[in-house]
Amino acid sequence: MSISSYRRHRTKSSPVEAVAGNGLLHRRALLRRGVILAGAISTAPLGSRTGAAAEPPTDAPLTEAPWSREPGSIIQPYQLPSRFEKNVVRTVSNPTGQPSPSGARTPHHLVNGTITPNGLHFVVVYGGVPDIDPDKHRLLIHGLVKRPLVFTLEALVRYPMVTRVTFLECGGNSAPLFSPQPLQANVQALHGLASCAEWTGVKLSTLLEETGTDPKAKWFIAEGADAPHLTRSVPLKKGLDDAMIALYQNGERLMPANGYPMRLLLPGYEGNMNVKYLRRIKLVEEPAMSFWESKVYTQILPNHKAYQFYLLQEVKSFITQPSPGMTLREPGPYEISGIAYSGAGRISKVMVSADGGRSWADAALQEPVLSKAFTRFRMPWRWDGGAAVLQSRAWDETGNVQPTRAEFVAQRGELKAVPPVAAVLNQHCNAITSWAVDSAGEVKHVYS
Amino acid sequence: MSISSYRRHRTKSSPVEAVAGNGLLHRRALLRRGVILAGAISTAPLGSRTGAAAEPPTDAPLTEAPWSREPGSIIQPYQLPSRFEKNVVRTVSNPTGQPSPSGARTPHHLVNGTITPNGLHFVVVYGGVPDIDPDKHRLLIHGLVKRPLVFTLEALVRYPMVTRVTFLECGGNSAPLFSPQPLQANVQALHGLASCAEWTGVKLSTLLEETGTDPKAKWFIAEGADAPHLTRSVPLKKGLDDAMIALYQNGERLMPANGYPMRLLLPGYEGNMNVKYLRRIKLVEEPAMSFWESKVYTQILPNHKAYQFYLLQEVKSFITQPSPGMTLREPGPYEISGIAYSGAGRISKVMVSADGGRSWADAALQEPVLSKAFTRFRMPWRWDGGAAVLQSRAWDETGNVQPTRAEFVAQRGELKAVPPVAAVLNQHCNAITSWAVDSAGEVKHVYS
Repeated sequence: MSISSYRRHRTKSSPVEAVAGNGLLHRRALLRRGVILAGAISTAPLGSRTGAAAEPPTDAPLTEAPWSREPGSIIQPYQLPSRFEKNVVRTVSNPTGQPSPSGARTPHHLVNGTITPNGLHFVVVYGGVPDIDPDKHRLLIHGLVKRPLVFTLEALVRYPMVTRVTFLECGGNSAPLFSPQPLQANVQALHGLASCAEWTGVKLSTLLEETGTDPKAKWFIAEGADAPHLTRSVPLKKGLDDAMIALYQNGERLMPANGYPMRLLLPGYEGNMNVKYLRRIKLVEEPAMSFWESKVYTQILPNHKAYQFYLLQEVKSFITQPSPGMTLREPGPYEISGIAYSGAGRISKVMVSADGGRSWADAALQEPVLSKAFTRFRMPWRWDGGAAVLQSRAWDETGNVQPTRAEFVAQRGELKAVPPVAAVLNQHCNAITSWAVDSAGEVKHVYS
Repeated sequence: MSISSYRRHRTKSSPVEAVAGNGLLHRRALLRRGVILAGAISTAPLGSRTGAAAEPPTDAPLTEAPWSREPGSIIQPYQLPSRFEKNVVRTVSNPTGQPSPSGARTPHHLVNGTITPNGLHFVVVYGGVPDIDPDKHRLLIHGLVKRPLVFTLEALVRYPMVTRVTFLECGGNSAPLFSPQPLQANVQALHGLASCAEWTGVKLSTLLEETGTDPKAKWFIAEGADAPHLTRSVPLKKGLDDAMIALYQNGERLMPANGYPMRLLLPGYEGNMNVKYLRRIKLVEEPAMSFWESKVYTQILPNHKAYQFYLLQEVKSFITQPSPGMTLREPGPYEISGIAYSGAGRISKVMVSADGGRSWADAALQEPVLSKAFTRFRMPWRWDGGAAVLQSRAWDETGNVQPTRAEFVAQRGELKAVPPVAAVLNQHCNAITSWAVDSAGEVKHVYS
């Protein structure tokens, strides 16, 4: 029986519970028998479809493939994905190692859940990936402290540790959405500079109890050990709140490009401030006004004023499945799925539209919803084979809501608006992303 | 200034808040200034220790190492740990691929947090690691169903998915604790057949809504596609509860040795039942009494009766740091840290002892505490340089408590008790583990 006839067959007894236009279904429908039956697709019925205890017929699909007949390979001490997943990799912006920044983007369309596996965590580095000997690395805390101290890794691991899941996002993630025309690129190219991991380390506040702090200290300057010696200024209040010296990433030591052997972790703050290869924290009265904060990560607005110390990565979401590069091969049910996150706290709500924002419905949020972490959202959808525009919009527990792209560019400007400073304009875009599905099932990036 | 003089210096103003014998400290002490100062160890003071804003002196420890002077390497599309972490690997039981079972054990002493990175997830396979082409793999659901169906991977990913963190543990994990004498082995050798990951896939109940179920069905048989065609019987009630067809492991597709392209996930149930390379689910009235459940994973007791269908992995914990193979280099504060988990639900409490069980104190549980998942526990401890025996004991939300080893072997027997069936006796050990610390700081496995 063909897919379409099966679909027709089941639809009669399965009323769709629409919650918004163009095929969005009530999420409780997922739990109710008959509704999902209407979406039984791409499954080839086997033999008699009415027999209550049908045995597989002789032409059963469980043919004995080579892997069912022969022993497999030897277990490796550190295992890697299947060779059939060789395309599930990061896109690397500077593959020949030119003396310029390098980036690697997470393939959000090919992963799922909320944890980014370590192999696929995004990276931005300004001087390549350093090869640091952890036994020789030191962390100095000095400046406006009572006792400047130097910590070896061996000392750090004796302190009380904490574990938390948090996302990291480059301030320049999603910069293509500043373009006046929608760039034809996939979700990895548009939003791949954000990832989420479980980090374990020592709270900075624990170490500052060791050094003591001078009441005059209001900021600290964090410095990396790699050649660019990237420095960023961080409010001391954040340092005494949830800042961490992260040593472990999803259980194992940090990846070399993610800061091995230690990095500053500032949950919810701009990626660049989470200084990698951390070797120095200096408590000071005023921010350093370093290159990275006075030029690169300063946000110039259409009125030629600037946002500076734009610390938080604001509430955001995007749909990962379906997304550009995928083709829906036939009408029928699909799951719309994506990630939402906010540097300000927990995601409180994600709404999804299939008609370009004319109607919206609440997506299901995967529990546990953690503060400053990726939250996976899901929405059942029946594609009728016609045109659709898929969008997601997130709210966080502080009441912030993700802006439409029109709202966003009205405030922040488009790329064309301020040509001379285009390179530094493309920061902190958290606007709604729109994916158009055409009647051929192709998915494209659009503005809607 | 030496470590010991620093420690003496700080101790005067820092009373220790003991909560149990032999140096266990109150966890709130962690948050109180002065207590941790007393434990400032292994940190080399820099220059003047009293200057409130000391600059690093000319002999500052931040020497410009090669990685601070030269560009680093090029980013790879799929990144791997540092070469300095080459020892953070699984121990492989069958490295030459003999025709016997193969295992790989997670190095719990070298990881932290609660997520096991995919590279280090434990493995037991009976026919090597198969190399399955996902496009050719099929999942058949048949037997006592209304409509037997075959699912391709392409079909499965269109169904509503769920994500959850859960541990997996081999029924044979911790089997060395059946030995009448404590095996001198590390935590990887003793407890390395347990890991924890974030899994994403389709609930089996969703697919059973598609096939329909015959009221006579009470069990289902799950079968793997690799050469051993491992089969296990599972109560259908579990299949309709939280069973999942897992497709993703920590965000990326399953590792080949962990079941790629799909496995059965039965949160909290014996590892072997979570059938990998899942190709068939057959609904039946009675269990199959397969080799794996009638012999290998049947538990023979001292009275020669047997536990069969011992499904749950019961409440358990063990200390990962410090643990055998580590040497405490000097008296002073250390963090005692480990993992706790229960197949029955959430961990409700973990207690730690430093005096072999004479006195106990509550450990801090890392939030969020998730059902049927690793929970990291932590306890501050001051080692006085004398003998200590470290233990942890866990409770779960159903009221179950981890038994002492004496209680455990009284009920289940020791290895010597039933020699002919020794090979099948070593299952489901969840007894308390004891690590002795001697005056040289060496950590050893003991019974206490």
